Amino acid sequence: MYRSHSCGELRTSDIDKQVTLSGWVQKARDKGFMIWVDLRDRYGITQLIFDEERTPAAVVEKAKTLGREFVIQVKGNVIERESKNPNIPTGDIEILVTELEILNEALVPPFTIEDETDGGEDIRMKYRYLDIRRNPVKNSLMFRHQVAMKVRNYLSDEGFVEVETPYLIKSTPEGARDFVVPSRMNEGQFYALPQSPQTFKQLLMVGGMDKYFQIVKCFRDEDLRADRQPEFTQIDCEMAFVEQEDILHIFEGLTKHLIKDIKGINIEHFPRMTYDEAMQTYGNDKPDIRFGMKFGELNVVSQHKEFKVFNEAELVVGIAVPGGASYTRKEIDKLVDWVKRPQVGALGMVYVKCNEDGSFKSSVDKFYDQEDLSKWAEVTGAKKGDLICVLSGAKNKVRGQLSALRMELAERLGLRNPEEFAPLWVVDFPLLEWDEDTERYHAMHHPFTSPKPDDIPLLDSKPGDVRANAYDLVLNGNEIGGGSIRIHDKETQALMFDHLGFTPEEAKEQFGFLMDAFQYGAPPHGGIAFGFDRLVAILGGQETIRDFIAFPKNNNGRDVMIDAPANIDQEQLKELSIKLDI
Amino acid sequence: MYRSHSCGELRTSDIDKQVTLSGWVQKARDKGFMIWVDLRDRYGITQLIFDEERTPAAVVEKAKTLGREFVIQVKGNVIERESKNPNIPTGDIEILVTELEILNEALVPPFTIEDETDGGEDIRMKYRYLDIRRNPVKNSLMFRHQVAMKVRNYLSDEGFVEVETPYLIKSTPEGARDFVVPSRMNEGQFYALPQSPQTFKQLLMVGGMDKYFQIVKCFRDEDLRADRQPEFTQIDCEMAFVEQEDILHIFEGLTKHLIKDIKGINIEHFPRMTYDEAMQTYGNDKPDIRFGMKFGELNVVSQHKEFKVFNEAELVVGIAVPGGASYTRKEIDKLVDWVKRPQVGALGMVYVKCNEDGSFKSSVDKFYDQEDLSKWAEVTGAKKGDLICVLSGAKNKVRGQLSALRMELAERLGLRNPEEFAPLWVVDFPLLEWDEDTERYHAMHHPFTSPKPDDIPLLDSKPGDVRANAYDLVLNGNEIGGGSIRIHDKETQALMFDHLGFTPEEAKEQFGFLMDAFQYGAPPHGGIAFGFDRLVAILGGQETIRDFIAFPKNNNGRDVMIDAPANIDQEQLKELSIKLDI
Repeated sequence: MYRSHSCGELRTSDIDKQVTLSGWVQKARDKGFMIWVDLRDRYGITQLIFDEERTPAAVVEKAKTLGREFVIQVKGNVIERESKNPNIPTGDIEILVTELEILNEALVPPFTIEDETDGGEDIRMKYRYLDIRRNPVKNSLMFRHQVAMKVRNYLSDEGFVEVETPYLIKSTPEGARDFVVPSRMNEGQFYALPQSPQTFKQLLMVGGMDKYFQIVKCFRDEDLRADRQPEFTQIDCEMAFVEQEDILHIFEGLTKHLIKDIKGINIEHFPRMTYDEAMQTYGNDKPDIRFGMKFGELNVVSQHKEFKVFNEAELVVGIAVPGGASYTRKEIDKLVDWVKRPQVGALGMVYVKCNEDGSFKSSVDKFYDQEDLSKWAEVTGAKKGDLICVLSGAKNKVRGQLSALRMELAERLGLRNPEEFAPLWVVDFPLLEWDEDTERYHAMHHPFTSPKPDDIPLLDSKPGDVRANAYDLVLNGNEIGGGSIRIHDKETQALMFDHLGFTPEEAKEQFGFLMDAFQYGAPPHGGIAFGFDRLVAILGGQETIRDFIAFPKNNNGRDVMIDAPANIDQEQLKELSIKLDI
Repeated sequence: MYRSHSCGELRTSDIDKQVTLSGWVQKARDKGFMIWVDLRDRYGITQLIFDEERTPAAVVEKAKTLGREFVIQVKGNVIERESKNPNIPTGDIEILVTELEILNEALVPPFTIEDETDGGEDIRMKYRYLDIRRNPVKNSLMFRHQVAMKVRNYLSDEGFVEVETPYLIKSTPEGARDFVVPSRMNEGQFYALPQSPQTFKQLLMVGGMDKYFQIVKCFRDEDLRADRQPEFTQIDCEMAFVEQEDILHIFEGLTKHLIKDIKGINIEHFPRMTYDEAMQTYGNDKPDIRFGMKFGELNVVSQHKEFKVFNEAELVVGIAVPGGASYTRKEIDKLVDWVKRPQVGALGMVYVKCNEDGSFKSSVDKFYDQEDLSKWAEVTGAKKGDLICVLSGAKNKVRGQLSALRMELAERLGLRNPEEFAPLWVVDFPLLEWDEDTERYHAMHHPFTSPKPDDIPLLDSKPGDVRANAYDLVLNGNEIGGGSIRIHDKETQALMFDHLGFTPEEAKEQFGFLMDAFQYGAPPHGGIAFGFDRLVAILGGQETIRDFIAFPKNNNGRDVMIDAPANIDQEQLKELSIKLDI
C-alpha cells in the first residue's frame, strides 16, 4: 500500500497517527540539522520534517538528495507544527519522517509547477503532463468532470437517455470540412468523423427514443481560429413531440440548474430576444447583456445635414460610453485607431462628448448643432459625462464594427464580470444566409432546420427573410448552445435541399436515409447542442477553453506533446489503397 | 403542447381526465361502428377508442384512414375499459377520442414493430431507426444508459475524475491496425484514432490526476469476427500509487455494485486463479466457472499402454460430461464430428462411458482395461452416468479444442444460465507471447505492462516464462476487463521495447514522449479497461452485443443504414494531399 492518507487530508485530530504518504516533492529546504519537504499530490500539500535528532541518519542523508518533482513515499508520525501555515488545510500539522523511499527521480522540470508558472504556452503544451500538475489546470479538469456529471444526472433525471452514436460515419459536403478515414475493407471509400451527431439523433427520434442526449466529441477540419479545436465536445440533445417552447423550457432548466448549483446564483427567467432585435440593439447575435451601451440608430437624426459620410451610409449607429466624456483627445484618437484596425475595419469614428454642463462637443461640430447632438444623446441613451461613439456604413458591416467596439470598451471599463451570469435566448434566426463566395444561400443553422410555417411562401420570393424555428442560448456574450425545431417530413426536406442548391440526386445520395426515415412515421422533433468546452470555461470564470481540455491541439491542429499528426509507413498506405499526393 | 401524458402513464385514477396523447399507431381494429387503436410511445401503449355514438363523425372518418406506424395526436377523455388487459400497465383504461390529428403518415414498415419481429438481421440494420422502436432494442439502449450512469456515479463517488483524452492521436505499429485520418493542414501526415487512451491515461498519472476514468470510444481496424465492431466503447481506468491489489479491490467493488444494483445478486468475493491454472483447468484464460467439467490431465494414466496416439501426444486431457453415459452411439459420433470441424480442429476424440453399474465402456477398450479407465474417471472427476471425452495433441491446441467442447456441451446441457453471475479474476498473465507469423515475442497485453520484478532476470533466458503484473476480469466466460500495473521508469520501458524488437530510434520516435515523461517524476501506476458493450450485454442477459449498440456496423465494417463508408470527391482528396491507389 503506497499511502494511508492523501496529502490534503491530515489535521490536528490526526496527531500521533502513524501514516504513509506518497507524492511529489514540491520543494525542499535544507537547514543542515533539519530538512523540510513540501509533499504534493492531487489533494494538497503536507509538510514533511526530517530532523537530525529524531529521524534515522540514513533517512536524513537520503532526504538531502531529493530534488523538485521527485516521487517519494514516506512513513512517519503526525505532529503539531511549531509555526502553523493558515493558508493550507494541512497547515497545523507536519509529518516527522521515519522512513523514506524514492519511488522515482525527476529531472528538473522545464517550468515551475506553481499556480503562477514561469513557463510559456508552448513549453507547457509540450510538457502538458507537467502542466496538469499545476492547480489551475488540474482544478479546471476536475471542474469539467463535475459539470459533466451534473449535466448527465440532471438530464437522466428528466428522462433523457444517453445514446452513443457512431464516430465512423459518412462525409457530407454541407457545412465545414469533414475529417475522413480511409476504409481498408472497402477499397477507395472513406468514413467521415461526425461534425455533430445531427442525423443520428434525428433518426433516434424517428426510432421513438423521444429524449436523447450525449456528451460527445465532434470534429471539424477548419483553419483554426484562436481558441478553436479540431475536436471539441458537445452536449447534444434532441426531443420528439415538442415545440420550440418545450425545448427552451427544458434547457433553460438545465442551465439554471448548473448556474445555481455551481455558482449559487439563482436566475428566475432567461430573457429572450429575436435575432433581428439582437442585431439592431447589439450588432451581434450573441450579445453580452451584462452591461448596456445599446445601439442607437441615428439615420433619422443624422442624415438631414451636409455630412456626406452619414448621408450615404446605409446605417448610422452609435453607443454611449459611460464616463467617456472625460477621455483625452489622445485616448479618443487611440479608440479611432482601434476601430480602424484591419480586424475591425471601420473607416473612421465620429464622437460626441456629453459634457457635465449639458453641452456637447463633437468631431462633427461643423455639420451638427447642439440640438442635433442632443437628439443623438437621446437615441443612444447618453447621459452627462458619456461619450457617444458613432460608426456608419453598410448595415451588416457597421453593426459588427460597433459591436466589437462595444465589447472592447466593456472589457476596458471592467463591465464583463466573470462572476456575473447573464443568459439570453436569441430566437427567430433567419433560415438562410447569403454566401458571397458561392453566390447562393446556405443554411444558417443546418439543412434540417424547419422554416416558420408562415414564412414558407417567402422561400421563393425573399429567401433571406424566411425565419427559422431556430434559437441560440447566449451566456455573457458567448453562444453556448444552439438548436432548432427540425423538418420532419420528406416534402419540406426536399424543398429545403432544393433551395440549398442540391439536385434531387445529390440530396438522395447524401441524405436519402433520412428522407426515407421521414416516410416511416417521423414525429415532430427538435433539439439543441451546447458547446461543452466553452460552457465549462464560462462557468469556471474563464474566457479561453484551453485549460479545460486535458490535451489540446495548437492552431495548426498539432498535438505538440506526442508530435501528431505524423508520417505513416508505405505498408499502411498500401493497405488503405491510398498514396500521398504531395 | 403535443401531449399531456405519455402512453405508459394513465391509470384508473386518471379516469374522467381530459388528456392529449401523441405516438405511433401500433395497430387499429375497425369494427365499423367502433375503432380501437393501440397508441405507442417510448413509455408504453394506451388503447384509444373511436365510437360512432360518442366521437364526432369526422374524427371517426379520419381514424379509418390510420395505418400502422402513423404518427398521431389525440385528445380525449380517460374512461374505464370494458374488457381490461392485465398484461399492460394502462390496461384498465382507454381514451375516448374527441380530436385526432395525423402528425405524419407512414409507409407500411418493412418488418413488424413487435417484440418478436418478422424482420431478419439485414433488413433491421438497414432500417435501424424502425428496429429501435421495438422493445428489445429500445430497452437495451435504455439499459445501457442506466449502466453507464451507475458506473460514472460509482467511480465519481470513489474520487475518480473523468477526463476526455484526444481522438486525433498518433499511429503506432504495435498491436492491431489503426484507423488513420489524413491531416489537411499537415501535408502528408496522418492522425490515428485511438485503439485505447493507454498512453494518455498514463500521462495523466504522470500529471498527478491519480484516479482517472473515461467511458470512451476506441477504434480497431481489424478483420471483423462475428460480434466485433470497428468502434467500441471502453470504461477506461487508471490509478497512481497503487499495487495490483488496490486495483483488483476497487474494480471488484465496481463490478459487485453493478451486479447487486442491476441484478439484486450479492457476490461476497470474486475468486482468483492464475493464468497457468486457468489454462490447465479450463484450457482457456477466460473460463466460465458457472459449471464444472474441469480438465483432468491424463498423461500419467494413459501413456503406459500401446496406444500410440496418446503416447506421442504432448497432452492427453479429458472432461466428464454429466449424464453423458446415456448418449447414443449416434449422438457421440456427432460430438466427434463437432470436435473435428475445422473451427475446432481436433483429429478425433476418445470417449469413456461410466456406466451406472460401475463398469466402463470406451472407444479404446483395445488398449485400456477397467482399472486404467477407473483412474481416468478419478482424474476427470467422472461419476456413474457420465461420459469422459478425451482429446490429445500439442498442449496449446488441445486445450483450446477441449475448451470449445466444454463450452458447447455446457450450452447444450443448459449450464450457461444468463441469470447466474460468476466473476473471476485471472492473474499472473505471461508478459510475452510468441508470434508464429513474425517469429518474435509480442506483448501479450501491451508494451507498457510491467513484468513481475522477480521474473525480470528471465527476460533474456526464458522470455516466455516471464509473468506480468497483469489481470483480467472474467464474467461468465467472457473477458469483461483487463489491465496491468504499468512500467513507470524509462529504463524498464526501454528494456521492454528492446525485447519487443524495437530499435532505440523506433522506440523514441513512437513513444519518446512517454519515456520523456517517465523522467519527470512518474508515480507507480496501473489500470484496467472494461469492454463496455460486452459488459452491458452480459448484465442484460445476452451474449451478443449488437442490440446494445444503437447503430452497429456489419462484418464488413459498413453502416448499411447510411451506406458508409462511401466515395469522397476529388476536391476533398486533393485538399488532403492523397490520391486513391486502386
